[in-house]
Amino acid sequence: MIRIAADLGGADRPQQELIEGAVRAVRELDDLYLYVTGDAKALSPCVEGVERLELVDAPEVITNSEDPTEAFKNKKNSTLIRALELCKSDADIGGFVSCGPTGAIFVASMMLLGRIARVSPMLLVELKRADGTPICIVDCGANVDCRAEKLVDFARMGTAYMKAVGIADPVTALLSNGAEDKKGSEVVKKANALLRESGLNFSGNTEANGILEGSADVIVCDGFSGNVLLKSIEGSGKAVIAEWRRLAAEAGIKDSASEQIMQRLYQKYDHNTQGGAVLLGTRLPVIKGHGAATSETVCNIIKSACKLAANGLTDKIRQEFN
Amino acid sequence: MIRIAADLGGADRPQQELIEGAVRAVRELDDLYLYVTGDAKALSPCVEGVERLELVDAPEVITNSEDPTEAFKNKKNSTLIRALELCKSDADIGGFVSCGPTGAIFVASMMLLGRIARVSPMLLVELKRADGTPICIVDCGANVDCRAEKLVDFARMGTAYMKAVGIADPVTALLSNGAEDKKGSEVVKKANALLRESGLNFSGNTEANGILEGSADVIVCDGFSGNVLLKSIEGSGKAVIAEWRRLAAEAGIKDSASEQIMQRLYQKYDHNTQGGAVLLGTRLPVIKGHGAATSETVCNIIKSACKLAANGLTDKIRQEFN
Repeated sequence: MIRIAADLGGADRPQQELIEGAVRAVRELDDLYLYVTGDAKALSPCVEGVERLELVDAPEVITNSEDPTEAFKNKKNSTLIRALELCKSDADIGGFVSCGPTGAIFVASMMLLGRIARVSPMLLVELKRADGTPICIVDCGANVDCRAEKLVDFARMGTAYMKAVGIADPVTALLSNGAEDKKGSEVVKKANALLRESGLNFSGNTEANGILEGSADVIVCDGFSGNVLLKSIEGSGKAVIAEWRRLAAEAGIKDSASEQIMQRLYQKYDHNTQGGAVLLGTRLPVIKGHGAATSETVCNIIKSACKLAANGLTDKIRQEFN
Repeated sequence: MIRIAADLGGADRPQQELIEGAVRAVRELDDLYLYVTGDAKALSPCVEGVERLELVDAPEVITNSEDPTEAFKNKKNSTLIRALELCKSDADIGGFVSCGPTGAIFVASMMLLGRIARVSPMLLVELKRADGTPICIVDCGANVDCRAEKLVDFARMGTAYMKAVGIADPVTALLSNGAEDKKGSEVVKKANALLRESGLNFSGNTEANGILEGSADVIVCDGFSGNVLLKSIEGSGKAVIAEWRRLAAEAGIKDSASEQIMQRLYQKYDHNTQGGAVLLGTRLPVIKGHGAATSETVCNIIKSACKLAANGLTDKIRQEFN
């Protein structure tokens, strides 16, 4: 049985709606046991008769407008803190998901779960190539100014993550402004040299236009460039689709099949509502869904957390650092 | 009469093909006088009877595989050096275009044209919003590691450029990993503070997903992030189109009107072959077309150079720095 804790507070949509995703996840995964923190009174009618789903009452929520450190100190009865306290006290819990505010999740996870060895926590986002295979970007925003050594740590964590999702020997590439080793900022050039000697399956530098259809599974960058990369993939995808719709309307194209494809592509490029960012480097994998998450998002991120726990992500990270 | 020098050597396609774009440009612009450096023997049949187009014989070309500094020293009879020598000796020439290798253009332009005052040269790329209005990204790759003061210089040059293409009071935004002033790397946070006091029309930070449909005309970033941004816009646009084509084929959609729109969008996102990067900060504006340029690219970049010269770009840059 894989045990996962889920915090449903602090998102845009009501907990009563989001819990439907949690219910779906336990129904679809026979080996999942789920703890859900939230407003027990409001939520209990939604989970009546649902097996392997345990409600944990947490009357407070932490919102995006609060200072993360203050909220951590003062809101011990919040959905976020109660869920993480549970993870801390119960060694059988293998993963944690939340749609709450990123800053608070980050601070509270660091304080209550602790780090793996000497690793700096970072945010990983998984994207899909056109053929559906996964790639990941590390770091996506947790570490804005990085030394070269930190980029190598990101590569190791990204490699462990890809192994946990089923890629046997993940290829790592370093995001740069040119494919040659000598291209890049001073930090990137140094990171390239360190990665060449790291023992990782490192293919060299990659430019940003070679990522979505490229052969690298792990894209390494600092949190600033990672954020630029991720957000511009999202923005460009949406811009192309918006332009297609405008031009199609002008041309009088009323093709519902094409529009259906566009809707599929829009959802794909709307990463935020689809999957979630994974906080790596804490003792348990933490998956953070977007604040605009739907019950589908909740179901998806619970399933992802379950898979990462079942495949021993934390142990795989430890192995990469040994 | 606006005088422009064009170098047709060092690109992927033969000079005889590229010169067709030069001929078209002088035919379409009555106030353009064009100097073209290239293999005069091969090119003269192509320009017979064409007015306001003067061939300057330059038997050598500089290729992408050569060291820029070595090439500058040794290839005085190359299309690139001959064109820049012409610009240096004739004060009436108002702009220079080339489809040769970026590094060699950069080095030779710095050496032969010289800088405007204390400004560090940088690369600007112009993109189009969905409604066709222009935005520019500065720097796109010339300055990889930058101090905050340099980012303010980029903002001033970008503002001057946008004024030269007809935007009365361009809005500048700073690329960051969050919209709030406190978000960003140490350099970006400092640049935000400097831009707030710069007298420029500064709207604050922008995330990468807010650029293509945003209100900022000038996007300021270091050359590393600018390259990531530009390349990922290109890569994502192409990936969406490739996925649409695959899904449309699978769904059995055979709609030539939709495919025509996709071709238009593909060309738009294929920046490299469409326009060119503008080297700003040298005494003359230098437009660098991609190595894969076609005769259409050549025609477009000559017209752009003509417009920038006619609108006094260099004077506008000087004004922004006074």
